[in-house]
Amino acid sequence: MARFRLLIEYDGSAYAGWQIQKNDPTIQGEIERALAIVLRNTTALTGAGRTDAGVHARGQVAHFDTDIDFDTERFQRSLNGILNDDIAIRAVLPADAEFHARYSARSRIYHYVIARQPVALLRHTCWYYSAKLDLASMNDASGRLIGKYDFKSFCRSISDVPHHTCNVIRAEWTETGEGFLTFVIEADRFLHGMVRSLVGTLIQVGRGCLTPDDIYHILDKKNRTAAGEAAPAKGLILHRVVY
Amino acid sequence: MARFRLLIEYDGSAYAGWQIQKNDPTIQGEIERALAIVLRNTTALTGAGRTDAGVHARGQVAHFDTDIDFDTERFQRSLNGILNDDIAIRAVLPADAEFHARYSARSRIYHYVIARQPVALLRHTCWYYSAKLDLASMNDASGRLIGKYDFKSFCRSISDVPHHTCNVIRAEWTETGEGFLTFVIEADRFLHGMVRSLVGTLIQVGRGCLTPDDIYHILDKKNRTAAGEAAPAKGLILHRVVY
Repeated sequence: MARFRLLIEYDGSAYAGWQIQKNDPTIQGEIERALAIVLRNTTALTGAGRTDAGVHARGQVAHFDTDIDFDTERFQRSLNGILNDDIAIRAVLPADAEFHARYSARSRIYHYVIARQPVALLRHTCWYYSAKLDLASMNDASGRLIGKYDFKSFCRSISDVPHHTCNVIRAEWTETGEGFLTFVIEADRFLHGMVRSLVGTLIQVGRGCLTPDDIYHILDKKNRTAAGEAAPAKGLILHRVVY
Repeated sequence: MARFRLLIEYDGSAYAGWQIQKNDPTIQGEIERALAIVLRNTTALTGAGRTDAGVHARGQVAHFDTDIDFDTERFQRSLNGILNDDIAIRAVLPADAEFHARYSARSRIYHYVIARQPVALLRHTCWYYSAKLDLASMNDASGRLIGKYDFKSFCRSISDVPHHTCNVIRAEWTETGEGFLTFVIEADRFLHGMVRSLVGTLIQVGRGCLTPDDIYHILDKKNRTAAGEAAPAKGLILHRVVY
């Protein structure tokens, strides 16, 4: 039995998220289907992070095991030939038996992109938000997220996890290209809906409805209703998984 | 009568090009339709460049005349509200009576993007081409395009223009982001299909099928059959029009 690691990019617009579901198309489901065709055998795929419906990835990582021998480059071409063009296998790499896409990950990096002016070309991968924003105070607030905190206030209530502590390593907004703002956040783990509710809350800071210090008050409440409304899925991209 | 200038971005995937046509959807047609609704009057729109079917723009410019008074920001919002989300009016600016989107342009800048590895997120705005390419010789060949030459060999034969001389100011390939190559070309004017056949020919240089010097031989022939096959429309973007 050999383990392999996939590097995956996808446009999540047409999918009900990463995780396989009974009736709706999912990224995991599509790739498992393609793997079954190429390997002539069903194989379970384990992903590094379960992206939500409509969320994209540039660097999702997943692993699977197989007995079958293959040339990785040809295998990659076969998978891409079967998959829809909104899912691309960027690499197929042999992995150690101990490698686990989810548990071996040291951190994940997400990007959230906001367009400041109307967009056409990148309309599926950003959120058009034109109201005035104070970038300095958004970065001031973002800086307060760095460290080990209980992020329960930024977690969707339907989530069932043993604890809500995340270690945020990086959180900042930068102007990227003409008319775009990108929020880059890196943490050891992310809770369900966390980045989108952080973005929604930081937008409130940028608009002057919240102060950077309010971030601490929201964290303290440990209640989802304390945070701002979640930003739309289409602006969120799983950028990279760090091992 | 006042003249206005529009800055337009579009994803050309679903359109038969810029120029209005009887039966197929075009960018000019869609915007003229939107203008007619907002101005309650038909208005002719003149674009800087006629992009082909499937070609995109980040900085197309067009002008129109109207008697009607309006607030440009509200007008822009109204147009964007009517237009499909694959066309975005990025700016509405008052223009001098002498301004002409096409004739006042000093130069146009096109980008052609090649993906070197499978892509999902940007699949509509680049050409996936994985074969080995010698970037140095492609840039060697591109440098030979700079200057005033007869580009008839790179012009679609159906084109009916008085002459084929173009002054190329810039032509170079650069690695942009992880796994992308972008060809940036700036010239006073472009012939029908010119950038796509230049890209197709430069790819032949990159593969070693043509030498950089062959560019001169192809230009000398003044015959479309001398050049390489045209690269697909989806990688081409009208990046900016310089006035």
